[in-house]
Amino acid sequence: MHTEAFSRAARIKLMIFDVDGVLTDGGLHYGHECEIIKRFHVQDGLGLRLLQEFGVQTAIITARQSPIVARRAADLGIHHVHQGVHNKAAAFDKLLAETKLTDEDCGFAGDDIIDLPVLTRVGFAASVPNGHSEVISRVHFVTQAYGGNGAVRNICDFILRAQGKYNKAIANYLS
Amino acid sequence: MHTEAFSRAARIKLMIFDVDGVLTDGGLHYGHECEIIKRFHVQDGLGLRLLQEFGVQTAIITARQSPIVARRAADLGIHHVHQGVHNKAAAFDKLLAETKLTDEDCGFAGDDIIDLPVLTRVGFAASVPNGHSEVISRVHFVTQAYGGNGAVRNICDFILRAQGKYNKAIANYLS
Amino acid sequence: MHTEAFSRAARIKLMIFDVDGVLTDGGLHYGHECEIIKRFHVQDGLGLRLLQEFGVQTAIITARQSPIVARRAADLGIHHVHQGVHNKAAAFDKLLAETKLTDEDCGFAGDDIIDLPVLTRVGFAASVPNGHSEVISRVHFVTQAYGGNGAVRNICDFILRAQGKYNKAIANYLS
Amino acid sequence: MHTEAFSRAARIKLMIFDVDGVLTDGGLHYGHECEIIKRFHVQDGLGLRLLQEFGVQTAIITARQSPIVARRAADLGIHHVHQGVHNKAAAFDKLLAETKLTDEDCGFAGDDIIDLPVLTRVGFAASVPNGHSEVISRVHFVTQAYGGNGAVRNICDFILRAQGKYNKAIANYLS
Repeated sequence: MHTEAFSRAARIKLMIFDVDGVLTDGGLHYGHECEIIKRFHVQDGLGLRLLQEFGVQTAIITARQSPIVARRAADLGIHHVHQGVHNKAAAFDKLLAETKLTDEDCGFAGDDIIDLPVLTRVGFAASVPNGHSEVISRVHFVTQAYGGNGAVRNICDFILRAQGKYNKAIANYLS
Repeated sequence: MHTEAFSRAARIKLMIFDVDGVLTDGGLHYGHECEIIKRFHVQDGLGLRLLQEFGVQTAIITARQSPIVARRAADLGIHHVHQGVHNKAAAFDKLLAETKLTDEDCGFAGDDIIDLPVLTRVGFAASVPNGHSEVISRVHFVTQAYGGNGAVRNICDFILRAQGKYNKAIANYLS
Repeated sequence: MHTEAFSRAARIKLMIFDVDGVLTDGGLHYGHECEIIKRFHVQDGLGLRLLQEFGVQTAIITARQSPIVARRAADLGIHHVHQGVHNKAAAFDKLLAETKLTDEDCGFAGDDIIDLPVLTRVGFAASVPNGHSEVISRVHFVTQAYGGNGAVRNICDFILRAQGKYNKAIANYLS
Repeated sequence: MHTEAFSRAARIKLMIFDVDGVLTDGGLHYGHECEIIKRFHVQDGLGLRLLQEFGVQTAIITARQSPIVARRAADLGIHHVHQGVHNKAAAFDKLLAETKLTDEDCGFAGDDIIDLPVLTRVGFAASVPNGHSEVISRVHFVTQAYGGNGAVRNICDFILRAQGKYNKAIANYLS
């Protein structure tokens, strides 16, 4: 018997991630003129590549706008990148139109209240231990690792397990 | 029945923040010639914007001087920014004159003993778990999150709750 | 009576390290165009120099490619540096050919599943508390310190102890 | 009745600090060509200034060499700065000659075994929770805060208390 989160993750075709607080620990590193660094995590990268390899699309929807995110997303082969999004629900609708998917086909991981309009619609809603309490209390799944320290990898592994693809993914490295 | 801190936060019209140790974790990132990065937190930004939207003014008083703080403060729409302040009480007096407010109308969040002259005067005094023990023992409210990791968001949420505005702020993201 | 890990470490002639997550905490610091910083740890540096001084060769095998790693490896006197390695087993075979060593002569420290093909072959396999659970469950030794915070020093000290060289290494600083 | 550490700290005329691991958390931030950032802590700065103001000289002895340390030391008004020191005992002897002080007049805070030759000579030896176990077991005082997160402030406060100057230092901010 599986948990509700597990059954929900099993049906996901597209997993969407917020950036600050999820792919990072929420730290905004300002230089003299603008944000100059974002700190991502190496284990998240491998998780996202495995997810893609096993047929789950990946996307980013983020309120802030930064060439840093474009660069990291390109390195990771993220399929859909929406930056500078002030209305996350509208960006999500656009993404559904682009991909011909439904709310239930999608997962979203966010850490703050501006993520709630999408988190309350998607089939699989995830957050992080460092997420806002209003978010954590409303999602299906909370990662063990903190944002920017492997939280995204936790989500990727969980989806792969729920979809029965995890053992095969690991086996590739044990043969 | 409310705590004293709650009642005090209910009366605040202006909330003032120290930078290093409160809006950051106290880390000073030096390059070869000067401080080149400050690490702020994304969740603090949303808290400050909510506070402003619901009618509480925001200010910064900091001993250090940096274009980084000016940049971050501008991005956050902070109303009053006083940098390079060696006498925090004098800067506070100036701020009161500018805003026509009284000690009791103001809140201040600081982490070290140079903040005591203002912390011991304001209506609502706050600190962080990483604050100096002399400060923590004298304030009305200590955040759960550490400085630079959501401490300021804790303060903003607490003031909004105390002023009966929190549920409305959250509801905007749940409609 | 010694643990298996201790006996295995006693026979090592070459110790190989993964970079991200082992020599660092896994953080990838992206600037506007590329990764611009890696955060190493000062105590790891002294451990590696002691290991070399007492006759154990050191190597790096890493999937990513960065001038930052080349610079740090040069400062540390790492004997063999293999970057941009997508097939870690192949790089390990190359290293064995170069050094005329066998699987049993070598140790490897890694944190993720791409390290498993080498970790499952070497005489002494090590990981870090922040390593992926599939890795931690398959290695002989898990450090107390986290990657980027002294994990490599833990490994170096453990090898020196296992090889009966630790007391002499410390004595040099106590005479 | 006071602890031995307290009595020892009471007699200090010069307090010497290691940099990496003590004034920082041991992180070495490498860019493409060299170390480009060191992360210090704001609360340490105020502690060092108080120590100087109340008549205790301050010094730095560090194995590494960096313009970053020179910059930070200048901002903090550190009296004696010795960088690029491979033999810490020799640098300490030089410092004693410069200041006409004896071993017993000095304190030293270090985190690794290369600090042992000086730590075992000075009147007051201090370390940090992130220090090497061989160091921690041999010093008079271990800070509560970690290196780079207020450890140096702990040491400064402890010396001021031991010398009966702490209450006066705090009172300046409470009048």
